[in-house]
Amino acid sequence: MAEVIGGPEWPFDEVSGEEYARLSALYEPLTQAIRDLVDAGVRTGVDDETITRAREAIEAVTQTLSSRRHDRTHTLRHADTGRPLAWANPAVGLRNAIAPPMRIERDNGLWVSEFSLGAAYEGPPNLVHGGICALVLDHLLGEAASNGLTEPKFTGTITLRYLRGTPLGALRAEAWIDRTDGVKTFARGVLRDADGVTVEADGIFIRPSWARVAE
Amino acid sequence: MAEVIGGPEWPFDEVSGEEYARLSALYEPLTQAIRDLVDAGVRTGVDDETITRAREAIEAVTQTLSSRRHDRTHTLRHADTGRPLAWANPAVGLRNAIAPPMRIERDNGLWVSEFSLGAAYEGPPNLVHGGICALVLDHLLGEAASNGLTEPKFTGTITLRYLRGTPLGALRAEAWIDRTDGVKTFARGVLRDADGVTVEADGIFIRPSWARVAE
Repeated sequence: MAEVIGGPEWPFDEVSGEEYARLSALYEPLTQAIRDLVDAGVRTGVDDETITRAREAIEAVTQTLSSRRHDRTHTLRHADTGRPLAWANPAVGLRNAIAPPMRIERDNGLWVSEFSLGAAYEGPPNLVHGGICALVLDHLLGEAASNGLTEPKFTGTITLRYLRGTPLGALRAEAWIDRTDGVKTFARGVLRDADGVTVEADGIFIRPSWARVAE
Repeated sequence: MAEVIGGPEWPFDEVSGEEYARLSALYEPLTQAIRDLVDAGVRTGVDDETITRAREAIEAVTQTLSSRRHDRTHTLRHADTGRPLAWANPAVGLRNAIAPPMRIERDNGLWVSEFSLGAAYEGPPNLVHGGICALVLDHLLGEAASNGLTEPKFTGTITLRYLRGTPLGALRAEAWIDRTDGVKTFARGVLRDADGVTVEADGIFIRPSWARVAE
Protein backbone atom coordinates (compact mmCIF):
# COMPACT_ATOMS: atom_id res chain seq x y z
CA MET A 1 0.00 0.00 0.00
CA ALA A 2 3.06 2.15 -0.42
CA GLU A 3 3.61 5.00 -2.85
CA VAL A 4 -0.08 5.16 -3.68
CA ILE A 5 -0.58 7.92 -6.22
CA GLY A 6 -4.33 8.15 -6.51
CA GLY A 7 -7.69 6.79 -5.54
CA PRO A 8 -10.90 7.72 -3.82
CA GLU A 9 -9.74 6.38 -0.44
CA TRP A 10 -7.60 9.44 0.14
CA PRO A 11 -9.03 11.69 2.81
CA PHE A 12 -9.98 14.53 0.52
CA ASP A 13 -12.37 17.35 1.18
CA GLU A 14 -14.25 18.53 -1.85
CA VAL A 15 -13.91 22.04 -3.16
CA SER A 16 -16.37 23.67 -5.54
CA GLY A 17 -15.26 25.02 -8.89
CA GLU A 18 -15.92 28.55 -7.69
CA GLU A 19 -13.88 28.14 -4.50
CA TYR A 20 -11.10 26.49 -6.50
CA ALA A 21 -10.92 29.52 -8.79
CA ARG A 22 -10.78 31.85 -5.79
CA LEU A 23 -8.01 29.87 -4.06
CA SER A 24 -6.00 29.54 -7.27
CA ALA A 25 -6.14 33.30 -7.87
CA LEU A 26 -4.86 33.81 -4.34
CA TYR A 27 -2.13 31.19 -4.14
CA GLU A 28 -0.75 31.08 -7.67
CA PRO A 29 0.73 34.61 -7.62
CA LEU A 30 2.24 33.98 -4.15
CA THR A 31 3.85 30.75 -5.32
CA GLN A 32 5.10 32.35 -8.53
CA ALA A 33 6.68 35.12 -6.44
CA ILE A 34 8.48 32.50 -4.32
CA ARG A 35 9.52 30.65 -7.50
CA ASP A 36 11.02 33.86 -8.90
CA LEU A 37 12.83 34.35 -5.58
CA VAL A 38 14.32 30.84 -5.79
CA ASP A 39 15.66 31.73 -9.25
CA ALA A 40 16.99 35.08 -7.99
CA GLY A 41 18.71 33.27 -5.11
CA VAL A 42 20.54 31.00 -7.54
CA ARG A 43 21.64 33.83 -9.82
CA THR A 44 22.14 36.91 -7.66
CA GLY A 45 25.46 38.71 -7.64
CA VAL A 46 24.59 41.55 -5.22
CA ASP A 47 26.93 42.54 -2.42
CA ASP A 48 27.13 40.91 1.00
CA GLU A 49 25.16 43.53 2.87
CA THR A 50 22.30 43.41 0.36
CA ILE A 51 22.18 39.63 0.72
CA THR A 52 21.99 39.91 4.49
CA ARG A 53 19.15 42.43 4.28
CA ALA A 54 17.33 40.24 1.75
CA ARG A 55 17.61 37.26 4.07
CA GLU A 56 16.16 39.26 6.96
CA ALA A 57 13.22 40.41 4.82
CA ILE A 58 12.55 36.84 3.68
CA GLU A 59 12.65 35.58 7.26
CA ALA A 60 10.07 38.19 8.24
CA VAL A 61 7.71 37.09 5.45
CA THR A 62 8.13 33.45 6.45
CA GLN A 63 7.26 34.30 10.04
CA THR A 64 4.10 36.07 8.90
CA LEU A 65 3.01 33.20 6.64
CA SER A 66 3.75 30.70 9.39
CA SER A 67 1.58 32.47 11.97
CA ARG A 68 -1.22 30.18 10.83
CA ARG A 69 -0.25 27.01 9.06
CA HIS A 70 -1.18 23.41 8.43
CA ASP A 71 0.90 20.71 10.07
CA ARG A 72 0.59 18.82 6.88
CA THR A 73 -0.63 19.73 3.46
CA HIS A 74 -4.32 19.68 2.92
CA THR A 75 -5.37 17.99 -0.29
CA LEU A 76 -8.68 18.99 -1.83
CA ARG A 77 -10.69 17.23 -4.52
CA HIS A 78 -12.34 19.27 -7.22
CA ALA A 79 -16.11 18.68 -6.94
CA ASP A 80 -16.66 18.94 -10.71
CA THR A 81 -13.78 16.79 -12.00
CA GLY A 82 -13.21 14.47 -9.03
CA ARG A 83 -9.49 15.10 -9.38
CA PRO A 84 -7.27 15.90 -6.41
CA LEU A 85 -5.78 19.37 -6.59
CA ALA A 86 -2.33 18.36 -5.35
CA TRP A 87 -1.59 21.94 -4.27
CA ALA A 88 1.64 20.94 -2.60
CA ASN A 89 2.97 18.46 -5.14
CA PRO A 90 6.62 19.17 -6.15
CA ALA A 91 5.85 18.48 -9.83
CA VAL A 92 2.41 20.03 -10.36
CA GLY A 93 1.56 21.88 -7.14
CA LEU A 94 0.19 25.39 -7.61
CA ARG A 95 1.26 26.09 -4.03
CA ASN A 96 4.75 24.60 -4.29
CA ALA A 97 7.57 26.84 -5.56
CA ILE A 98 9.70 23.74 -6.23
CA ALA A 99 7.23 22.68 -8.95
CA PRO A 100 7.87 24.15 -12.43
CA PRO A 101 4.77 23.73 -12.18
CA MET A 102 3.68 21.17 -14.75
CA ARG A 103 0.18 21.75 -16.08
CA ILE A 104 -1.15 18.54 -17.48
CA GLU A 105 -3.58 18.26 -20.38
CA ARG A 106 -5.23 15.16 -21.71
CA ASP A 107 -5.27 14.63 -25.45
CA ASN A 108 -7.14 11.38 -26.16
CA GLY A 109 -4.97 8.71 -24.54
CA LEU A 110 -1.98 11.03 -24.24
CA TRP A 111 -1.08 12.97 -21.10
CA VAL A 112 0.86 16.06 -22.05
CA SER A 113 2.63 18.84 -20.18
CA GLU A 114 4.52 21.81 -21.59
CA PHE A 115 6.68 23.81 -19.20
CA SER A 116 9.90 25.74 -19.01
CA LEU A 117 12.84 24.97 -16.72
CA GLY A 118 15.30 27.69 -15.67
CA ALA A 119 18.53 27.99 -13.69
CA ALA A 120 17.13 26.33 -10.55
CA TYR A 121 16.78 23.02 -12.43
CA GLU A 122 20.27 22.96 -13.94
CA GLY A 123 22.63 20.02 -13.51
CA PRO A 124 25.45 20.07 -16.08
CA PRO A 125 26.03 23.53 -17.59
CA ASN A 126 22.97 24.66 -19.60
CA LEU A 127 21.29 21.25 -19.19
CA VAL A 128 18.46 20.08 -16.97
CA HIS A 129 19.59 17.91 -14.02
CA GLY A 130 18.92 14.27 -14.93
CA GLY A 131 17.03 13.82 -11.66
CA ILE A 132 14.66 16.65 -12.59
CA CYS A 133 13.96 14.87 -15.89
CA ALA A 134 13.18 11.82 -13.74
CA LEU A 135 10.87 13.85 -11.49
CA VAL A 136 8.73 15.21 -14.33
CA LEU A 137 8.54 11.86 -16.14
CA ASP A 138 7.79 9.89 -12.96
CA HIS A 139 4.97 12.29 -12.25
CA LEU A 140 3.48 12.25 -15.75
CA LEU A 141 3.64 8.45 -16.08
CA GLY A 142 1.91 8.26 -12.69
CA GLU A 143 -0.85 10.57 -13.94
CA ALA A 144 -1.35 8.39 -17.01
CA ALA A 145 -1.33 5.13 -15.04
CA SER A 146 -3.76 6.44 -12.41
CA ASN A 147 -6.06 8.19 -14.88
CA GLY A 148 -5.20 11.63 -13.52
CA LEU A 149 -4.74 10.42 -9.92
CA THR A 150 -8.33 9.17 -9.76
CA GLU A 151 -7.46 5.44 -9.61
CA PRO A 152 -5.23 4.09 -6.85
CA LYS A 153 -1.89 2.87 -8.18
CA PHE A 154 1.57 2.63 -6.76
CA THR A 155 4.81 2.94 -8.65
CA GLY A 156 6.64 -0.36 -8.90
CA THR A 157 9.55 0.37 -11.21
CA ILE A 158 10.56 3.20 -13.50
CA THR A 159 13.43 3.20 -16.00
CA LEU A 160 14.80 6.34 -17.63
CA ARG A 161 16.96 6.29 -20.74
CA TYR A 162 18.88 9.49 -21.37
CA LEU A 163 19.36 9.81 -25.13
CA ARG A 164 21.08 13.20 -24.88
CA GLY A 165 21.21 16.19 -22.57
CA THR A 166 17.98 18.10 -22.06
CA PRO A 167 18.55 21.84 -22.53
CA LEU A 168 17.11 24.37 -20.09
CA GLY A 169 14.13 26.24 -21.53
CA ALA A 170 10.86 25.15 -23.13
CA LEU A 171 10.13 21.42 -22.86
CA ARG A 172 7.28 19.03 -23.49
CA ALA A 173 6.58 15.76 -21.70
CA GLU A 174 4.17 13.08 -22.91
CA ALA A 175 2.97 9.86 -21.28
CA TRP A 176 0.54 7.12 -22.18
CA ILE A 177 -0.54 3.67 -21.08
CA ASP A 178 1.24 1.04 -23.12
CA ARG A 179 -0.72 -1.97 -21.78
CA THR A 180 -2.40 -3.43 -18.74
CA ASP A 181 -1.77 -6.92 -17.42
CA GLY A 182 -3.82 -7.89 -14.36
CA VAL A 183 -2.94 -5.53 -11.53
CA LYS A 184 -0.03 -4.04 -13.50
CA THR A 185 -0.27 -0.98 -15.72
CA PHE A 186 2.66 -0.35 -18.06
CA ALA A 187 3.08 3.34 -18.82
CA ARG A 188 5.58 4.99 -21.14
CA GLY A 189 6.64 8.53 -21.78
CA VAL A 190 9.15 10.91 -23.29
CA LEU A 191 10.67 14.29 -22.59
CA ARG A 192 11.25 16.46 -25.68
CA ASP A 193 12.92 19.71 -26.61
CA ALA A 194 12.38 21.45 -29.96
CA ASP A 195 14.69 18.95 -31.68
CA GLY A 196 13.01 15.77 -30.44
CA VAL A 197 13.16 13.23 -27.63
CA THR A 198 15.86 13.65 -24.97
CA VAL A 199 14.71 11.10 -22.35
CA GLU A 200 12.52 8.00 -22.57
CA ALA A 201 10.73 6.46 -19.58
CA ASP A 202 9.05 3.12 -18.86
CA GLY A 203 7.11 2.54 -15.67
CA ILE A 204 5.19 -0.29 -14.05
CA PHE A 205 2.34 0.82 -11.79
CA ILE A 206 0.44 -1.58 -9.55
CA ARG A 207 -3.11 -1.55 -8.21
CA PRO A 208 -2.83 -1.89 -4.43
CA SER A 209 -4.28 -4.99 -2.75
CA TRP A 210 -6.80 -2.99 -0.71
CA ALA A 211 -8.25 -1.61 -3.94
CA ARG A 212 -8.42 -5.12 -5.40
CA VAL A 213 -10.21 -6.44 -2.31
CA ALA A 214 -12.74 -3.62 -2.62
CA GLU A 215 -13.68 -4.60 -6.17
CA MET B 1 28.47 14.23 -25.05
CA ALA B 2 25.15 14.85 -23.43
CA GLU B 3 24.26 14.86 -19.78
CA VAL B 4 27.90 15.12 -18.77
CA ILE B 5 28.09 15.18 -15.00
CA GLY B 6 31.74 15.86 -14.28
CA GLY B 7 35.20 16.30 -15.64
CA PRO B 8 38.03 18.78 -15.87
CA GLU B 9 36.88 20.17 -19.22
CA TRP B 10 34.13 22.18 -17.59
CA PRO B 11 34.88 25.88 -17.63
CA PHE B 12 35.42 26.26 -13.91
CA ASP B 13 37.12 29.06 -12.10
CA GLU B 14 38.96 27.98 -9.01
CA VAL B 15 38.05 29.28 -5.60
CA SER B 16 40.36 29.09 -2.58
CA GLY B 17 39.29 27.29 0.58
CA GLU B 18 39.12 30.62 2.39
CA GLU B 19 36.94 32.26 -0.25
CA TYR B 20 34.73 29.17 -0.34
CA ALA B 21 34.17 29.45 3.41
CA ARG B 22 33.29 33.14 3.06
CA LEU B 23 30.84 32.57 0.20
CA SER B 24 29.23 29.62 1.96
CA ALA B 25 28.68 31.67 5.12
CA LEU B 26 27.02 34.34 3.00
CA TYR B 27 24.85 32.23 0.70
CA GLU B 28 23.83 29.31 2.89
CA PRO B 29 21.70 31.37 5.30
CA LEU B 30 20.04 33.20 2.37
CA THR B 31 19.20 29.92 0.65
CA GLN B 32 17.94 28.37 3.89
CA ALA B 33 15.68 31.40 4.37
CA ILE B 34 14.24 30.88 0.86
CA ARG B 35 13.85 27.15 1.56
CA ASP B 36 11.90 27.95 4.73
CA LEU B 37 9.75 30.34 2.70
CA VAL B 38 8.99 27.60 0.16
CA ASP B 39 7.81 25.39 3.03
CA ALA B 40 5.76 28.24 4.50
CA GLY B 41 4.16 28.84 1.09
CA VAL B 42 3.02 25.21 0.93
CA ARG B 43 1.61 25.19 4.43
CA THR B 44 0.33 28.67 5.19
CA GLY B 45 -3.25 29.24 6.22
CA VAL B 46 -3.17 33.02 6.72
CA ASP B 47 -5.90 35.25 5.34
CA ASP B 48 -6.06 36.63 1.82
CA GLU B 49 -4.82 40.11 2.64
CA THR B 50 -1.78 38.76 4.49
CA ILE B 51 -0.95 36.57 1.50
CA THR B 52 -1.15 39.54 -0.85
CA ARG B 53 1.15 41.59 1.39
CA ALA B 54 3.58 38.66 1.67
CA ARG B 55 3.67 38.35 -2.12
CA GLU B 56 4.47 42.05 -2.50
CA ALA B 57 7.28 41.82 0.06
CA ILE B 58 8.74 38.78 -1.74
CA GLU B 59 8.58 40.54 -5.10
CA ALA B 60 10.51 43.49 -3.62
CA VAL B 61 13.27 41.18 -2.33
CA THR B 62 13.49 39.43 -5.71
CA GLN B 63 13.86 42.77 -7.43
CA THR B 64 16.70 43.73 -5.09
CA LEU B 65 18.52 40.41 -5.56
CA SER B 66 18.04 40.64 -9.33
CA SER B 67 19.59 44.11 -9.58
CA ARG B 68 22.87 42.33 -10.23
CA ARG B 69 22.71 38.77 -11.42
CA HIS B 70 24.39 36.14 -13.55
CA ASP B 71 22.74 35.18 -16.83
CA ARG B 72 23.70 31.66 -16.04
CA THR B 73 24.98 30.00 -12.94
CA HIS B 74 28.66 30.27 -12.25
CA THR B 75 30.27 27.01 -11.24
CA LEU B 76 33.46 27.19 -9.20
CA ARG B 77 35.98 24.49 -8.49
CA HIS B 78 37.44 24.18 -5.01
CA ALA B 79 41.20 24.74 -5.28
CA ASP B 80 42.01 22.27 -2.47
CA THR B 81 39.74 19.36 -3.41
CA GLY B 82 39.39 19.91 -7.17
CA ARG B 83 35.65 19.31 -6.84
CA PRO B 84 33.06 21.57 -8.46
CA LEU B 85 30.95 23.42 -5.93
CA ALA B 86 27.68 22.97 -7.81
CA TRP B 87 26.15 25.95 -5.99
CA ALA B 88 23.04 25.90 -8.14
CA ASN B 89 22.44 22.16 -8.36
CA PRO B 90 18.83 21.19 -7.47
CA ALA B 91 20.02 18.20 -5.41
CA VAL B 92 23.12 19.50 -3.61
CA GLY B 93 23.30 23.22 -4.37
CA LEU B 94 24.01 25.45 -1.38
CA ARG B 95 22.52 28.32 -3.40
CA ASN B 96 19.42 26.46 -4.62
CA ALA B 97 16.35 26.45 -2.36
CA ILE B 98 14.93 23.51 -4.34
CA ALA B 99 17.78 21.32 -3.06
CA PRO B 100 17.16 19.61 0.33
CA PRO B 101 20.27 20.13 0.14
CA MET B 102 22.04 16.79 0.08
CA ARG B 103 25.46 16.87 1.71
CA ILE B 104 27.52 14.01 0.42
CA GLU B 105 30.18 12.20 2.41
CA ARG B 106 32.51 9.52 1.18
CA ASP B 107 32.98 6.45 3.34
CA ASN B 108 35.49 4.19 1.60
CA GLY B 109 33.78 3.21 -1.63
CA LEU B 110 30.36 4.33 -0.41
CA TRP B 111 28.84 7.72 -1.19
CA VAL B 112 26.42 8.67 1.56
CA SER B 113 23.99 11.51 2.17
CA GLU B 114 21.69 12.07 5.12
CA PHE B 115 18.98 14.69 4.76
CA SER B 116 15.44 15.46 5.76
CA LEU B 117 12.52 16.06 3.41
CA GLY B 118 9.50 18.13 4.46
CA ALA B 119 6.12 19.14 3.06
CA ALA B 120 7.54 20.63 -0.15
CA TYR B 121 8.68 17.15 -1.27
CA GLU B 122 5.42 15.33 -0.59
CA GLY B 123 3.65 13.25 -3.23
CA PRO B 124 1.12 10.84 -1.70
CA PRO B 125 0.00 11.89 1.81
CA ASN B 126 2.94 11.77 4.23
CA LEU B 127 5.20 10.17 1.62
CA VAL B 128 8.01 11.59 -0.49
CA HIS B 129 7.08 12.09 -4.17
CA GLY B 130 8.51 9.16 -6.16
CA GLY B 131 10.17 11.62 -8.53
CA ILE B 132 12.01 13.27 -5.64
CA CYS B 133 13.34 9.83 -4.63
CA ALA B 134 14.50 9.55 -8.25
CA LEU B 135 16.17 12.97 -8.09
CA VAL B 136 18.25 12.20 -4.97
CA LEU B 137 19.24 8.73 -6.19
CA ASP B 138 20.07 9.90 -9.72
CA HIS B 139 22.31 12.55 -8.21
CA LEU B 140 24.07 10.26 -5.74
CA LEU B 141 24.68 7.49 -8.29
CA GLY B 142 26.11 10.18 -10.58
CA GLU B 143 28.47 11.33 -7.81
CA ALA B 144 29.64 7.74 -7.26
CA ALA B 145 30.09 7.06 -10.99
CA SER B 146 31.98 10.31 -11.62
CA ASN B 147 34.11 10.11 -8.46
CA GLY B 148 32.49 13.17 -6.95
CA LEU B 149 31.95 14.91 -10.30
CA THR B 150 35.70 14.91 -11.01
CA GLU B 151 35.57 12.41 -13.90
CA PRO B 152 33.42 13.11 -16.97
CA LYS B 153 30.49 10.68 -17.26
CA PHE B 154 27.04 10.90 -18.67
CA THR B 155 23.98 9.08 -17.46
CA GLY B 156 22.85 6.39 -19.86
CA THR B 157 20.06 4.62 -18.00
CA ILE B 158 18.73 4.60 -14.48
CA THR B 159 16.13 2.21 -13.02
CA LEU B 160 14.33 2.81 -9.74
CA ARG B 161 12.48 0.07 -7.85
CA TYR B 162 10.03 1.34 -5.26
CA LEU B 163 9.83 -1.30 -2.53
CA ARG B 164 7.47 0.76 -0.36
CA GLY B 165 6.56 4.39 0.24
CA THR B 166 9.31 6.66 1.56
CA PRO B 167 8.04 8.66 4.56
CA LEU B 168 8.76 12.37 4.87
CA GLY B 169 11.43 13.13 7.49
CA ALA B 170 14.97 11.89 8.04
CA LEU B 171 16.39 9.77 5.22
CA ARG B 172 19.70 8.31 4.13
CA ALA B 173 20.86 7.61 0.60
CA GLU B 174 23.83 5.44 -0.33
CA ALA B 175 25.50 4.76 -3.68
CA TRP B 176 28.49 2.78 -4.88
CA ILE B 177 30.14 1.54 -8.05
CA ASP B 178 29.08 -2.03 -8.73
CA ARG B 179 31.46 -2.66 -11.65
CA THR B 180 33.14 -1.06 -14.64
CA ASP B 181 33.10 -2.49 -18.13
CA GLY B 182 35.04 -0.49 -20.72
CA VAL B 183 33.46 2.95 -21.01
CA LYS B 184 30.49 1.92 -18.84
CA THR B 185 30.31 2.35 -15.08
CA PHE B 186 27.52 0.47 -13.29
CA ALA B 187 26.46 2.27 -10.12
CA ARG B 188 23.89 1.16 -7.56
CA GLY B 189 22.22 2.81 -4.63
CA VAL B 190 19.43 2.77 -2.09
CA LEU B 191 17.23 5.20 -0.22
CA ARG B 192 16.50 4.26 3.41
CA ASP B 193 14.31 5.37 6.26
CA ALA B 194 14.81 4.19 9.85
CA ASP B 195 13.18 0.83 8.98
CA GLY B 196 15.32 0.00 5.97
CA VAL B 197 15.44 0.34 2.21
CA THR B 198 12.50 2.03 0.47
CA VAL B 199 13.89 2.50 -3.06
CA GLU B 200 16.65 0.72 -4.99
CA ALA B 201 18.45 2.24 -7.98
CA ASP B 202 20.68 0.92 -10.77
CA GLY B 203 22.41 3.24 -13.19
CA ILE B 204 24.70 2.95 -16.19
CA PHE B 205 27.07 5.89 -16.67
CA ILE B 206 29.20 6.32 -19.78
CA ARG B 207 32.56 8.01 -20.33
CA PRO B 208 32.06 10.48 -23.19
CA SER B 209 33.96 9.98 -26.44
CA TRP B 210 35.86 13.27 -26.15
CA ALA B 211 37.27 12.10 -22.80
CA ARG B 212 38.23 8.76 -24.35
CA VAL B 213 40.03 10.47 -27.24
CA ALA B 214 41.95 12.62 -24.77
CA GLU B 215 43.36 9.60 -22.96
